[in-house]
Amino acid sequence: MQKIKFETDYQEGAHPKILERLLAANLEQTSGYGVDSHCENAKNLIRKVIGKSNAEIFFAVGGTQSNTIAIKFLLNPCEGVISVQSGHINVHESGAIEATGHKVITLPHHNGLMDANDLKNYLKKFYADPTWPHMTPPGMVYVSYSSEYGTLYTKEMLTKIKAVCNEYKLNLFIDGARLGAGLMSSAADMNIKDIANLCDAFYIGGTKNGALFGEAIVFPKPEKFNFRLMTTLIKQQGGLLAKGRLLGLQFEVLFEDDLYFENAKHADIQAMKIKKAFTEAKIPFLFESFTNQQFPILTQEQHKKLSSEFDYETWEPLENNKIAVRFVTSWATTDDNVDRLVKAIKAL
Amino acid sequence: MQKIKFETDYQEGAHPKILERLLAANLEQTSGYGVDSHCENAKNLIRKVIGKSNAEIFFAVGGTQSNTIAIKFLLNPCEGVISVQSGHINVHESGAIEATGHKVITLPHHNGLMDANDLKNYLKKFYADPTWPHMTPPGMVYVSYSSEYGTLYTKEMLTKIKAVCNEYKLNLFIDGARLGAGLMSSAADMNIKDIANLCDAFYIGGTKNGALFGEAIVFPKPEKFNFRLMTTLIKQQGGLLAKGRLLGLQFEVLFEDDLYFENAKHADIQAMKIKKAFTEAKIPFLFESFTNQQFPILTQEQHKKLSSEFDYETWEPLENNKIAVRFVTSWATTDDNVDRLVKAIKAL
Amino acid sequence: MQKIKFETDYQEGAHPKILERLLAANLEQTSGYGVDSHCENAKNLIRKVIGKSNAEIFFAVGGTQSNTIAIKFLLNPCEGVISVQSGHINVHESGAIEATGHKVITLPHHNGLMDANDLKNYLKKFYADPTWPHMTPPGMVYVSYSSEYGTLYTKEMLTKIKAVCNEYKLNLFIDGARLGAGLMSSAADMNIKDIANLCDAFYIGGTKNGALFGEAIVFPKPEKFNFRLMTTLIKQQGGLLAKGRLLGLQFEVLFEDDLYFENAKHADIQAMKIKKAFTEAKIPFLFESFTNQQFPILTQEQHKKLSSEFDYETWEPLENNKIAVRFVTSWATTDDNVDRLVKAIKAL
Amino acid sequence: MQKIKFETDYQEGAHPKILERLLAANLEQTSGYGVDSHCENAKNLIRKVIGKSNAEIFFAVGGTQSNTIAIKFLLNPCEGVISVQSGHINVHESGAIEATGHKVITLPHHNGLMDANDLKNYLKKFYADPTWPHMTPPGMVYVSYSSEYGTLYTKEMLTKIKAVCNEYKLNLFIDGARLGAGLMSSAADMNIKDIANLCDAFYIGGTKNGALFGEAIVFPKPEKFNFRLMTTLIKQQGGLLAKGRLLGLQFEVLFEDDLYFENAKHADIQAMKIKKAFTEAKIPFLFESFTNQQFPILTQEQHKKLSSEFDYETWEPLENNKIAVRFVTSWATTDDNVDRLVKAIKAL
Repeated sequence: MQKIKFETDYQEGAHPKILERLLAANLEQTSGYGVDSHCENAKNLIRKVIGKSNAEIFFAVGGTQSNTIAIKFLLNPCEGVISVQSGHINVHESGAIEATGHKVITLPHHNGLMDANDLKNYLKKFYADPTWPHMTPPGMVYVSYSSEYGTLYTKEMLTKIKAVCNEYKLNLFIDGARLGAGLMSSAADMNIKDIANLCDAFYIGGTKNGALFGEAIVFPKPEKFNFRLMTTLIKQQGGLLAKGRLLGLQFEVLFEDDLYFENAKHADIQAMKIKKAFTEAKIPFLFESFTNQQFPILTQEQHKKLSSEFDYETWEPLENNKIAVRFVTSWATTDDNVDRLVKAIKAL
Repeated sequence: MQKIKFETDYQEGAHPKILERLLAANLEQTSGYGVDSHCENAKNLIRKVIGKSNAEIFFAVGGTQSNTIAIKFLLNPCEGVISVQSGHINVHESGAIEATGHKVITLPHHNGLMDANDLKNYLKKFYADPTWPHMTPPGMVYVSYSSEYGTLYTKEMLTKIKAVCNEYKLNLFIDGARLGAGLMSSAADMNIKDIANLCDAFYIGGTKNGALFGEAIVFPKPEKFNFRLMTTLIKQQGGLLAKGRLLGLQFEVLFEDDLYFENAKHADIQAMKIKKAFTEAKIPFLFESFTNQQFPILTQEQHKKLSSEFDYETWEPLENNKIAVRFVTSWATTDDNVDRLVKAIKAL
Repeated sequence: MQKIKFETDYQEGAHPKILERLLAANLEQTSGYGVDSHCENAKNLIRKVIGKSNAEIFFAVGGTQSNTIAIKFLLNPCEGVISVQSGHINVHESGAIEATGHKVITLPHHNGLMDANDLKNYLKKFYADPTWPHMTPPGMVYVSYSSEYGTLYTKEMLTKIKAVCNEYKLNLFIDGARLGAGLMSSAADMNIKDIANLCDAFYIGGTKNGALFGEAIVFPKPEKFNFRLMTTLIKQQGGLLAKGRLLGLQFEVLFEDDLYFENAKHADIQAMKIKKAFTEAKIPFLFESFTNQQFPILTQEQHKKLSSEFDYETWEPLENNKIAVRFVTSWATTDDNVDRLVKAIKAL
Repeated sequence: MQKIKFETDYQEGAHPKILERLLAANLEQTSGYGVDSHCENAKNLIRKVIGKSNAEIFFAVGGTQSNTIAIKFLLNPCEGVISVQSGHINVHESGAIEATGHKVITLPHHNGLMDANDLKNYLKKFYADPTWPHMTPPGMVYVSYSSEYGTLYTKEMLTKIKAVCNEYKLNLFIDGARLGAGLMSSAADMNIKDIANLCDAFYIGGTKNGALFGEAIVFPKPEKFNFRLMTTLIKQQGGLLAKGRLLGLQFEVLFEDDLYFENAKHADIQAMKIKKAFTEAKIPFLFESFTNQQFPILTQEQHKKLSSEFDYETWEPLENNKIAVRFVTSWATTDDNVDRLVKAIKAL
């Protein structure tokens, strides 16, 4: 029998409303490559929800693509992108950024987050060194919301990072693969308008929040950039979907009735039940997360028991033969599956 | 009122059977990135239909991605890929191949096709020049079946090209964005097993033949290559779909009951009706095509009339104020729409 | 016995005055990477001779480097560079431009030269095609003076090309590997100030005109560009010489007393003697060149005789078993060697 | 008056014997691009001194070029190169490695050196993670001898690193920009034959040891590699010098009479005098170096005094308002200048 999966937030298909809409529009004829009314409509819905009526928005199929496209767009060919060590672009994208010629310049992470002081100190030291042109000049800053470890920047933290960026003329880009789970978290003190205000570009992750696939790359301050070659860049990076309206259709559904936020809310609620169960079982966590990723630290015995019934990711071996693992919930995580997991945790 | 579209073969969604399957499997839980039973099953179906039980197969989302991935995989970083001038990689992929560092080396085309003699002469001359290391050494040959102009290689033509490739130790790669329409053409003298036998790699285009999206990159002679880093390469190029089973599911449907070939057959039949109508109206063609792309040469008056009712691509302005245009049919082209077009052509 | 070489203009060392200066300055202590008084002085000498007192100038070691650096600097990462088919960057630089991610977009050549009408027609057609973002947008134009075939643009021709560039907002870059031989030719109607006026960037070739090595990349209109990251770009491309003063020293010698122009003049005079000898012997040329490269078309018998005594490049096999070859002269070509060649030609 | 410079080991020209040879050979005619008897002779001299009669050797102009060429040659396009954080390719080459598409994967350094255990642990952990294809697979290891901090691997240390490389099928490459100063150090327990035995590729730095410029990239085990495209790779990276014999001539002089080692010995001896002076003055060092780079830690007052008479690099601000600085000696460092420095140190 197949185990119940808590491996990722992309192990099921799409929210039924999205499939319905794909079915309904299936035989419509539209032009290719995103030049269609669904994409236009989806962009307008996003513009409205982020409170930026002139935002430039581009759709891409996946997260690595979105990061690569946005970063290549925002950097001079000689520059690097600053990220914390644990940043997705530094760890889990197979060197895609470097494949476009750019160095990922790393700062230490603090529970997956960048500290504005680390950033400032790095930049001060960098430009204090007269040999800086022989190093890799930073051109932008990359952060994730929510982070790869499920943690969240407060508005104050992000505001400080943006201030440093402004001082050094760096663009700030937010990887929003799990933006929904971040914003809907009980620990969040920001909404999507704050995100749009605080950065120069971000992407709204659809893949991990109820879409079949798809991310929306948003430039809330379009007056800062020249987008003339953006379609070419996206095509060149393999990110221009022929049947582009599939992306528009999905984002229409996600943003016309708050489905995007409801999906994320659901994922977070399910995760909090699991968090509660581990906490009550006195099982510690590798990171304190209030979003849809939970990183309990298990003994080998606990791991053996849970893994007989559930699939989840083993994250990192720790001292004393313990092991950190990862449970992820999504829009599709059922109450029933969570209940079974909670029960299994209680039985440890 | 919206005009009837004959612009492309990717202006509708997917064949209904594919959507049905996506719906049916929607809440299945599978691992991400193509490690699932649907992908495995689809690969086995393809292996069977091409007659290569150990072929290595990888899925990608779109055609530019597939070309980029296959070409980057097959070339040494210093080498270039040989294509005819009209090859898709040379014209319509926004410089994606060059963006990976490789030159596209061009030969003249003959109705969109490469001539084995041109290839041989180029290679002879190249290596006769002692300064060849200062030029771009060719590492592989790229051809399209069917071609960008709807034309087809005969088995003899392709066999000759492969012989030159073998003599110069070049891999032969076939862009099969419109492989189905080629193979199902009344003018084709090859089947998909011949394709697999005659090349080192090819891709089976799903996007233009009934899938929502998706291409299958096939290596029919896997013993020639080392695939250890292929997943990394695909991920690095932004081509690794998180919900990879979506690709597997679609190719399962396309290949379990010959739907792939039926779709293409339908497109070709519709195109032949249109070809017949233009021919009977004494309207000439830019290329003699027996596949789903037709390139009639219109007078401005004819163009004005037809374009009032139909959307199609204007291909190229010609002498005497004439204009070459392109009509494309697909699995989704209805009899009704074709009838209306035929009627309009007769009325010119 | 070694044959007399007319293979290239880089088969000897450097003009003795340059070696003298290297010796004299050998034990001076200077900072590295071109931050020294010799480089500064050389730049000022060049600024004076080109009549642009604020020109930005950078030194690089060789021609491929210079082209790669200038083109990478002038292009957006998505753009391509327009060159004639015979352009050095398209033929003889091992794909170095493509290795930086840029396509070389080719136009036909006319005796090695670009025609402004070809350029204009290409650009008109490019932007008339609504799918242009799926092609490679041109970002600049590359021409060579003198050309790879020894031919020369007139001032009128170059002025027309620049006008098209201005209309389409493309930068014009001149490869001056053999700038000296071009400017000193009896057929030239331009001086180095004209060159500086007519383009956005060019490089002054030292390697082929009396230096041990070294090229000066010149931006005569620096107000158009931001040079903040130029040192980084040069270093990244492997072009930043540690003992940078070696470049400055050489260009000081070349430009403080017109040695640059005298060297080139000498090369051209020697070439004209050879041209005269071939002409008098009724031996035709592949290209009509009045610079230091001559391309006579020999019979196999003539080739056999000449090649027994002289080394020169075989350029291209032609019909009727004839062969085009290349003789090159330089600052170092002695009267004695030329006399022997002329005598041998007469004896054919 | 100009201060005495201890900034770098490339602030003077070349050893007089090299200049003599350049003068003597100046009007010789040779073919370009390193196809000449001087290059051949130099390669044979190097083969002899390293004890590998069939080693493949290529010359390049500078260090960044040499690293870029060797690393691009040794890696699959998807792979990264492992280096310590302080490695030159990670810090001071302007992101040149990333510009070729490769990630620099960093390990912590121990006084500038890599620890074989760190390497092993990294590799074990990397391949223990089933998601490794989503990370950057390491393809080789890069170390410097002597290191960027003047420190040295013992033979045992390097042997252990090579053993880990062998276990994981990684090539080991040694950056020998300061190979001479390393091998001639009183602390060295290896000779150049050991270096050749212990790695798969290394380069012999000429620029920092008496040449005008030039490095020799050596593959002591050529049977492991295919060099067919190496000239193309070097040309593509801008590293193929037109007057290639200049590189051959210099390495001939450096290796025909042990000048390479004598130059380095001289540099080390001068450095040891300076080290002794600082030690006697109770001034501590940032790193314990027995090669030609010395990193004393000065108080602001000491710094003020020394810098009034000498130029040297400020390396890093430290706690308590102290500052680490760098003094570098070379083949050209005179006794007189060292004596003055020693005197000044004593006077602190």
